Amino acid sequence: MTIKRLPSYFRVLDELTKEDVEIVSSTEMGRRTGFSSEQIRKDLAYFGAFGTRGVGYNVSVLRRRIRSILGLDRTLPVALVGAGNLGRALAHYNRNQQQHMRITHIFDINEEIIDRPVAGIQVQDAREMGRIVADTGIKMAIVAVPREAAQKTVDLLAQSGVKAVLNFAPVRVDAPEEVVVKSVDLTSEMQSLAYYCR
Amino acid sequence: MTIKRLPSYFRVLDELTKEDVEIVSSTEMGRRTGFSSEQIRKDLAYFGAFGTRGVGYNVSVLRRRIRSILGLDRTLPVALVGAGNLGRALAHYNRNQQQHMRITHIFDINEEIIDRPVAGIQVQDAREMGRIVADTGIKMAIVAVPREAAQKTVDLLAQSGVKAVLNFAPVRVDAPEEVVVKSVDLTSEMQSLAYYCR
Repeated sequence: MTIKRLPSYFRVLDELTKEDVEIVSSTEMGRRTGFSSEQIRKDLAYFGAFGTRGVGYNVSVLRRRIRSILGLDRTLPVALVGAGNLGRALAHYNRNQQQHMRITHIFDINEEIIDRPVAGIQVQDAREMGRIVADTGIKMAIVAVPREAAQKTVDLLAQSGVKAVLNFAPVRVDAPEEVVVKSVDLTSEMQSLAYYCR
Repeated sequence: MTIKRLPSYFRVLDELTKEDVEIVSSTEMGRRTGFSSEQIRKDLAYFGAFGTRGVGYNVSVLRRRIRSILGLDRTLPVALVGAGNLGRALAHYNRNQQQHMRITHIFDINEEIIDRPVAGIQVQDAREMGRIVADTGIKMAIVAVPREAAQKTVDLLAQSGVKAVLNFAPVRVDAPEEVVVKSVDLTSEMQSLAYYCR
């Protein structure tokens, strides 16, 4: 569960680095992340990062530590499956935002899209996905396919060695125990919010 | 908290309607949503929807009930703030996916984008956003602005009568008590997953 909070800590440490701040207290980290300072001290201690009492944490050391834990000290190649509206959007977004994770492969089944570039990457035939993903050793995938194709896509990715999936298809998908699936259902998020607008 | 699960129930009831299923048990609802049948019965009872013991729920009646609770029985106009890569993507996605929530206004501060169409909607000057949102009575907004502009944007939306915000800016934003903010931080989601790919 701590893992879920580490990206927030990493983001704040990035901000602090840009602001040339060298030392940060758990209180200040709490102010910037919205988590309690106690929670933060506990989380960081869990990963062997201890601050100096009454002083705080060394920003540079702590940032490097979290970066390494998250595996962000090297660039992680990512496969994007589905180059429809949302997929294309995510590809463009990734090109501009992400430094640590890079969409390197895009797959689709639509003949009109295959071989064309999206965000500078040539779309490949989804029927060759299993082989290509296995051969290149890609471990992370973004799934932006229609609901009906989601489970089949995740099954194939899992068989091909993928360990983490960010799923945007609005459906529940199952995966083997060794594969982590995180779902982002934009439609559900908006429907929950609609309740507060009545 | 029940509100968070209602969109899942609604999605399953939509599926069942398309499959011409008239009666559904809480067990089958559980299988399709991933929630326990006990949880589902409790949630639905909370909103006054009771199934027939040993038979189940009437799909059509239950679907209408949840649609009404979520406020999806009328189309909700939505303002999108920020027409960069992510904002444009969300606009195109919304045009193709959403039936109950419709992006009707798009705002940006970039002079090169203002007055141009995005997904069929003319982008308006963000400096006029407060007035326009208040005048039209828009209650929901999607925030896809850079981190630095997010808090200011949410403040202005809240002052203009917006009650629900879906925030994509990778930063914590505060809002008055009467405004619900749900944040989707795609970068953090991917960073959490990176951990499992090391």
